Amino acid sequence: MTALVGEGPSTRELALGEFVTASGQSLSGMRLRYRVVGDVEAAHEHGWILVFHALTGSADAEAWWGPLIGPGKALDTSRHAIVSANLLGSCYGSTGPQEWASEHDEPFPDLTPADLALAHVPLLEHLNVERLALATGGSLGGMVTLEWGRRSAVPVDRLVVFAAPAATSAQAIAWNTVQRMAIEADPAWRRGRYLPGQGPVAGLAAARALAMITYRSGLEFDARFGRASTRVAGRFDVDYYLRRQGDKLVARFDAASYIALMRAMDLHDVGDLGAAARATAERVKTVVGVGVDTDLLYLPGEVRAWTDAYRGAGVDARYREIRSPSGHDAFLIEWDQVEAILREP
Amino acid sequence: MTALVGEGPSTRELALGEFVTASGQSLSGMRLRYRVVGDVEAAHEHGWILVFHALTGSADAEAWWGPLIGPGKALDTSRHAIVSANLLGSCYGSTGPQEWASEHDEPFPDLTPADLALAHVPLLEHLNVERLALATGGSLGGMVTLEWGRRSAVPVDRLVVFAAPAATSAQAIAWNTVQRMAIEADPAWRRGRYLPGQGPVAGLAAARALAMITYRSGLEFDARFGRASTRVAGRFDVDYYLRRQGDKLVARFDAASYIALMRAMDLHDVGDLGAAARATAERVKTVVGVGVDTDLLYLPGEVRAWTDAYRGAGVDARYREIRSPSGHDAFLIEWDQVEAILREP
Repeated sequence: MTALVGEGPSTRELALGEFVTASGQSLSGMRLRYRVVGDVEAAHEHGWILVFHALTGSADAEAWWGPLIGPGKALDTSRHAIVSANLLGSCYGSTGPQEWASEHDEPFPDLTPADLALAHVPLLEHLNVERLALATGGSLGGMVTLEWGRRSAVPVDRLVVFAAPAATSAQAIAWNTVQRMAIEADPAWRRGRYLPGQGPVAGLAAARALAMITYRSGLEFDARFGRASTRVAGRFDVDYYLRRQGDKLVARFDAASYIALMRAMDLHDVGDLGAAARATAERVKTVVGVGVDTDLLYLPGEVRAWTDAYRGAGVDARYREIRSPSGHDAFLIEWDQVEAILREP
Repeated sequence: MTALVGEGPSTRELALGEFVTASGQSLSGMRLRYRVVGDVEAAHEHGWILVFHALTGSADAEAWWGPLIGPGKALDTSRHAIVSANLLGSCYGSTGPQEWASEHDEPFPDLTPADLALAHVPLLEHLNVERLALATGGSLGGMVTLEWGRRSAVPVDRLVVFAAPAATSAQAIAWNTVQRMAIEADPAWRRGRYLPGQGPVAGLAAARALAMITYRSGLEFDARFGRASTRVAGRFDVDYYLRRQGDKLVARFDAASYIALMRAMDLHDVGDLGAAARATAERVKTVVGVGVDTDLLYLPGEVRAWTDAYRGAGVDARYREIRSPSGHDAFLIEWDQVEAILREP
């Protein structure tokens, strides 16, 4: 287990009691670490905001969406209360494989984005949330947002899904397979049964390096590291950059959590889009799917396809596209465009 | 060291004597394993054909371009003699890191595609080749072909470069970096100082699995493993497929050779395109650059760009594009299109 960036003094823990997964599996002892910022009184009038983080994020949404959160910002803390929980399976305070292994003999269960969404139902009950002005997230967080849409226990004004498909493609599963293989090639992996601080850091670093390529774009690499770059080492700086990205992640993230959340992404599939859309329409007024024009991982056409299908099934569903040289990660970079989309009425 | 698929009874060995690299480094003791098929007498009239293999290929060109080679085929063995050598750095009979380590204390030298091309100069002298009707290859073999074009010691009628850029992009180096990291994450790597049969098979398998994604395409994965697939396991078959591809490679290829040839690809850069084109025009009549419309690794636009620059510098240079759902590997799959390009006058 590594440093808990997201588990600060401002986070709290909720025991989920008996947690039943989307497939009907009953799990006990699961805990969710969450954080609330903003104005809970104002939220009774204007609604709450629910934010889901991506693969290696935490309940501290300001750590990765900081420019969007604050008084008068797109996620307006003077009008709303913003709740964000560390996803089950992660390593920032909610129950993940490491805590699970210390209390159970059987392996950590396969969780899906639907399960990660459902774990928020008791949290919103606990907080007495009666209405969500917005539910949103990107990448894995976007998959969870999409599942929240059709499973929400409370009304939602706007559901904004960034850079996430309705079902993970074979190619996206393939990227994850290689990351698994790299982690498994490190003997410290020991099928996840390693001691704290003795995890497969070299394998996880390789996995992260691969993920970073799929999160960015050739355009950006050419601009930063290509012939057009003014840097001396030029193209080969990309080698240093990727190794550094790997080193940074292993200092803050647990390999078994990484494997568990990749597995959730692999399993992502909302199934029949018409049925999903109709279930979503029962609680959600407006759905926005946001693609990124240079996204290698979850292609903009995939986002457009489910948005179109939702609209075809009678949902007020809109497609928006971020234009960026930065690829998949644009939802964490292109603040002006992300803010404009979040502010749409 | 693993099975030597390409080192059959029909291959021969040439000692290169004092081999001077493009950067001026003098190397002794290098050997090239090569193979000649076809009609040497007829080749005096119609010219020889020189074929360069890709990353994990061998001197046995029929093993990977079989449908193109034979009497009356695009590489016509009744009119030409076809020579193909195992590239330096590989593990199919030419000098690679394993043989090098058994004879030297210093590490295997950094070789570039220019060096891999130059090693063929004494081979063609040895064979008394006076004219090449065709020099060709794909991927790494295409890079070597491009370098051969500006360094050829004999006249060349046609130079056909499949799926190779003029300089390796930062993103392509990034894919290689992750493969290096996966191999290094396997403790059996031991910086290449492992004993025969004790190499980093798990790391090399992960590297190969990543490479396979970049050699194919999302279109193909969707068709084979996606929702449209009739296979039961559907999307998750891609996981099995990639692991199987990794297992197959580690049974036939050496990790240190893999690292050495990836390094050569990273270093690929013909430099100033005008100068390269003018040097090429001294010996080569026609240059054809062939892109693949779905190539993720070496984008068709990269191939078109150097072809256009060559033409702009006065070379008879043509761009052709293979249309295929198969991505980079199309030059090993789309036989009809490859044959039509090779047969062009």
